[in-house]
Amino acid sequence: MKVLILGGGGFLGRKLALSLADRQELRGSKIDQMVLADIVDPKPIDAPFEMEYQRCDISDPASVATCVDAEIDVIYLLAAVVSAHAEQDLDSGIQANIMGVLNVLERCRELETCPVVVFTSSIAVFGGDTPQPFNDYSLPNPQTSYGAQKMIGEYLITDYSRRGLIDGRGFRLPTITVRPGKPNRAASSFMSGIFREPLNGETANCPVEPDFKQLYLSPRKCVENLVKGAELDAVDLGQNRCLTMPGKTWTIAEMIEAMTQVAGPAAATRITWNKQPEIDGILKGWHMDIHPERGLALGLEADESFEDNIRIYLEDDAPKS
Amino acid sequence: MKVLILGGGGFLGRKLALSLADRQELRGSKIDQMVLADIVDPKPIDAPFEMEYQRCDISDPASVATCVDAEIDVIYLLAAVVSAHAEQDLDSGIQANIMGVLNVLERCRELETCPVVVFTSSIAVFGGDTPQPFNDYSLPNPQTSYGAQKMIGEYLITDYSRRGLIDGRGFRLPTITVRPGKPNRAASSFMSGIFREPLNGETANCPVEPDFKQLYLSPRKCVENLVKGAELDAVDLGQNRCLTMPGKTWTIAEMIEAMTQVAGPAAATRITWNKQPEIDGILKGWHMDIHPERGLALGLEADESFEDNIRIYLEDDAPKS
Repeated sequence: MKVLILGGGGFLGRKLALSLADRQELRGSKIDQMVLADIVDPKPIDAPFEMEYQRCDISDPASVATCVDAEIDVIYLLAAVVSAHAEQDLDSGIQANIMGVLNVLERCRELETCPVVVFTSSIAVFGGDTPQPFNDYSLPNPQTSYGAQKMIGEYLITDYSRRGLIDGRGFRLPTITVRPGKPNRAASSFMSGIFREPLNGETANCPVEPDFKQLYLSPRKCVENLVKGAELDAVDLGQNRCLTMPGKTWTIAEMIEAMTQVAGPAAATRITWNKQPEIDGILKGWHMDIHPERGLALGLEADESFEDNIRIYLEDDAPKS
Repeated sequence: MKVLILGGGGFLGRKLALSLADRQELRGSKIDQMVLADIVDPKPIDAPFEMEYQRCDISDPASVATCVDAEIDVIYLLAAVVSAHAEQDLDSGIQANIMGVLNVLERCRELETCPVVVFTSSIAVFGGDTPQPFNDYSLPNPQTSYGAQKMIGEYLITDYSRRGLIDGRGFRLPTITVRPGKPNRAASSFMSGIFREPLNGETANCPVEPDFKQLYLSPRKCVENLVKGAELDAVDLGQNRCLTMPGKTWTIAEMIEAMTQVAGPAAATRITWNKQPEIDGILKGWHMDIHPERGLALGLEADESFEDNIRIYLEDDAPKS
């Protein structure tokens, strides 16, 4: 079993790689080799099998061809240009999020090996005029280019799977909270920042009202679901290979209260509440009620509570003093 | 007012051009010039304004640039690789139905003229695991590459409109019946053939059961809706620029009965009933109940009866003896 993680240098790709190194197997087979590929050099990890590290720009077919070879059984396609970046730079979004997906799928088609392809879509596909709550059969009406590009990726994944060129499955990731590390260009970046920075003794800004609602999932559960996602039987996925990864809906106020329960009252006092006009439009469209029924029925899981998310961050990712 | 019809050599493009020549105006402005562009040379039409005819391959950005200039106010984007063709030839489908749409939109973006773009999608987007009936907020789960590619076009049209790069609107065309001329490579071709050929004294094959249901529309009403579609206010289209063009749902049996009512019993005896394995898979997925509510609310119209469709064919298109 050879696994390729495109986007293996990102925080989720790295956590996934560490989890697979720990499990040593996937889809009932021992992992012999894993390749981490990213637009920047991925950091090495310790693993009990052969590791390879590559630069890969998915928007370049030649670069994709050097990473995707005939030995690969499972491809995780996590590489993407994120929301606020894709909104500011339409070309980069199209190149990575549309052409990049197409390049990977075309390479699989050329090899005729029909690998499992696990694609990460996003709940950013939802929004617009479609009546809420959103379930797996609601029409996504994204209000960002990122969301539109992710939907295009979903249709490609399902169509190439229907044609037998890949065995694809796509998961619309909830907002992953609490993300470790630094803020990124995702408009959702603050949804981790307002917990991560205050827990680390720093201030952070919240640009939305306390009643802002979203679907959230911890990085640990997300990685577990990505592993399970690769292991699902194609027949159980049916005619639509893409669905919402389970998460739970909380308000900002509920999440701050959970942080206070777990870590005491000081952290919440470090949050400032200023609007950010440059992402306000994106965020207004992301106040939503999402029901991830298909994913739950397939055995994917959400966190039990936001207290759990905070504990998972403190256990897995917080800087140890 | 300058109008461009990409796909202006096709049967619908030509009927649309004739209708616009007759109206002489669109969106409240006098038409000064119209360009018909197609992959083969479009046949000339009589018009009371300047006409231009061009070859255009929408899958080639340079070809698109020669057709789409800064004077154009309204673009009809009808050019496409149709269903059975796109199913047999994935590359051609991707090139025309995805890259072709992207090339037109990118050219508009480059010109910064924000033209009205009327895109023809298809009810072939529907199907799969999504529960019926399908309305404008149902998740399309197409079971052909053509349907997937049309959905990708829809997401591009809505996103480029949201960004203010075009003023787009997309309409999922019902099966257009009775189409004049010869059978084409669309899997739905028989849905016209079983009326057209028998009415002209020839035989035709029906590869589905008499209870097969679909959404149908006459070419005349389709053209009226395409004209109205260009004239809709963007604000009335809301955040999703794409919707189902109204049509009516009939069974094959009901339609044959209507033909008998209008044209006598002889025609129906010329229909043969043999399965066609090469399109059977496509057709099974097209047995569906579609509710085109948004289009009706916006003032687009369906035919009153299938008797009307038959009469419209006899008036507009049947060879005159």
